[in-house]
Amino acid sequence: MLVTLLTDFGTTDHFVASMKGVLLQRCPGATLVDITHEVAPQDLRAAAFTLLACYADFPAPAVHLVVVDPGVGSDRRALVVEAGGYRFVAPDNGVLSYVLDREPAARVFHARKEEFFRAPVSTTFHGRDVFAPLAAALAGGLDPARVGPAVRDAVRMEAIGVHREGGGLRGTVLHVDRFGNCITSFTRRELSDAAPRREVRLRVNGHEIRRIRHFFAQGREDDREPFAIWGSAGFLEIAVNRGSAARLLGVRPGDAVLALLP
Amino acid sequence: MLVTLLTDFGTTDHFVASMKGVLLQRCPGATLVDITHEVAPQDLRAAAFTLLACYADFPAPAVHLVVVDPGVGSDRRALVVEAGGYRFVAPDNGVLSYVLDREPAARVFHARKEEFFRAPVSTTFHGRDVFAPLAAALAGGLDPARVGPAVRDAVRMEAIGVHREGGGLRGTVLHVDRFGNCITSFTRRELSDAAPRREVRLRVNGHEIRRIRHFFAQGREDDREPFAIWGSAGFLEIAVNRGSAARLLGVRPGDAVLALLP
Amino acid sequence: MLVTLLTDFGTTDHFVASMKGVLLQRCPGATLVDITHEVAPQDLRAAAFTLLACYADFPAPAVHLVVVDPGVGSDRRALVVEAGGYRFVAPDNGVLSYVLDREPAARVFHARKEEFFRAPVSTTFHGRDVFAPLAAALAGGLDPARVGPAVRDAVRMEAIGVHREGGGLRGTVLHVDRFGNCITSFTRRELSDAAPRREVRLRVNGHEIRRIRHFFAQGREDDREPFAIWGSAGFLEIAVNRGSAARLLGVRPGDAVLALLP
Repeated sequence: MLVTLLTDFGTTDHFVASMKGVLLQRCPGATLVDITHEVAPQDLRAAAFTLLACYADFPAPAVHLVVVDPGVGSDRRALVVEAGGYRFVAPDNGVLSYVLDREPAARVFHARKEEFFRAPVSTTFHGRDVFAPLAAALAGGLDPARVGPAVRDAVRMEAIGVHREGGGLRGTVLHVDRFGNCITSFTRRELSDAAPRREVRLRVNGHEIRRIRHFFAQGREDDREPFAIWGSAGFLEIAVNRGSAARLLGVRPGDAVLALLP
Repeated sequence: MLVTLLTDFGTTDHFVASMKGVLLQRCPGATLVDITHEVAPQDLRAAAFTLLACYADFPAPAVHLVVVDPGVGSDRRALVVEAGGYRFVAPDNGVLSYVLDREPAARVFHARKEEFFRAPVSTTFHGRDVFAPLAAALAGGLDPARVGPAVRDAVRMEAIGVHREGGGLRGTVLHVDRFGNCITSFTRRELSDAAPRREVRLRVNGHEIRRIRHFFAQGREDDREPFAIWGSAGFLEIAVNRGSAARLLGVRPGDAVLALLP
Repeated sequence: MLVTLLTDFGTTDHFVASMKGVLLQRCPGATLVDITHEVAPQDLRAAAFTLLACYADFPAPAVHLVVVDPGVGSDRRALVVEAGGYRFVAPDNGVLSYVLDREPAARVFHARKEEFFRAPVSTTFHGRDVFAPLAAALAGGLDPARVGPAVRDAVRMEAIGVHREGGGLRGTVLHVDRFGNCITSFTRRELSDAAPRREVRLRVNGHEIRRIRHFFAQGREDDREPFAIWGSAGFLEIAVNRGSAARLLGVRPGDAVLALLP
């Protein structure tokens, strides 16, 4: 009975507390874990990436409750997903895209049976009135298929990936973390397929990154040259020793990254 | 054995951790839920509003532990309140006012029996030494009446409300949330009593709000005209599509809002 | 099975969630309590102070998991410590110094048996791959001595203390808290040994502090003169009524504080 929460609600207001209250009302004894509530307001890509980076670290069958919901109150659907042994509850706006890309056997349902909602359902806070009650029901053992009909056309964002461009590969900056490390969309397999046993240089925002480090503290402590490093989420990251690569290079999520193959 | 915590201690220092340690020392197995620790330092109104907005979402008999305490160490009283099936622990400085306004059958006690405190009691951190131990005792089943004598003159803030003014109603901005939505003191009943079946216009900080929306994403996505909407806490809110109404209109908590009746 | 977490990971990214997922994978039913994740990136002193200020408030045998780790991936050791009835897991970089100063009977071990790690161990996220698995094992009852050999040369920071200087004592500002209070390294014993029954004046950053208050709200509410006060962590603090002493006096952690004895 583990439920994680991932929202853009911040921690200053009562929103997260209201959701947790409803979860504990309907599933007493549930263990609640915050993934984050500091997603920038309505930033679906950041939420999708953060979920991708940690959902599989939790013991199955955890319920992952994701509420970044600019369309609250409109007719966008509420989704329940079963994937990889986990359950997910989220609005149908693409926020589960990266998980669905990684879990091709996922089953997706349109949660429309109001018996699983809180009554009355407000038009402005489905986190409390729709998504938290669904998560509580799933944590209590509800079969995902019972919430409503199967969905084959869930809203999807562009998949994480890289593309051939000239003699290299073009990817993007997926995320900038708290330390200023820039997580790119390059995975080990793509780069090693393209350049087996060879050095790769990266170009981002007019800067060139020439070195791959094995760990952060490698090299001299006063060395301020940015470098690439294989990050813990499985993607190539651009970093700088004891500083913010994002600030140093002026990089933001969505920026293009070119891998120049030798 | 559910205890919620609401403070202005922030999450950078050890204060909240110390309180949780004491709670778990004295009530092993308690479930601890943060409401927020990001109340602006000593902002009693923000704390009172946040508590009001979510206390009833938790399963009774949760203990709500509220520590916003500019008078720590002085002779301000510590209160224990039983209301609506819940228990509340807080300093006697008005922070429970809105709950007391809503729960007329509340019983209020002056917690002065030192046997329920941690010894010795510091003069600067009653959250750890007085309030957390009281909350732990209540979570463990202590009868609120046992902490000390009944209180009939608890400190109260001005009640949330609206007043007749000319041909309209005058309310205030209670709170600005993370998204910049401005929560006003107008409730549905007050407005429908004053203007049944009629459109209402709001005036705030020199701006006029002419429309009430049913949900946030209603209307065109590029429409930047502020609108009113019935919020999830039961109050009329002023919002703007995908932006901060507070920033757009220059509105702060405490600002006056006029409802112009047709 | 209580595990506390203290990191510089912030709460925006997935890092803390990944650690909690691993903890709950390996120690189902563990109670997880955040001390803080808002330590400034790689600020070992702030982390060490925050841990010192609250570790003993938790019920033994809690496991305190501390990850502020600029040397991640290098050959810095992972430590497991048994002290004061608690267990600690942290990188060997000094972050446990203040606890070790206070607990002379501590036993320190070099955690190098990979059977207690997650496989494979990344080079960039030992919080998830090394420290959280160790904490989970300890919470599950593992004898600290089983993780690897005893260590007698753990990295230590300069101890908290004060030194004779001229006719007074010289200490430092250990920490500035959320309210702007400046926690100094002076303890009650040192000052009372040096100046029994006598008034002490402090000098910091060119300002002189002439009064010691018993509690924050003592004196007139509009009095903006900074004062000293015995703080809840056992150190003398410099504060100002309803304001930030750090901002008023321009004080930062590490600044010198002189106690002028009469």
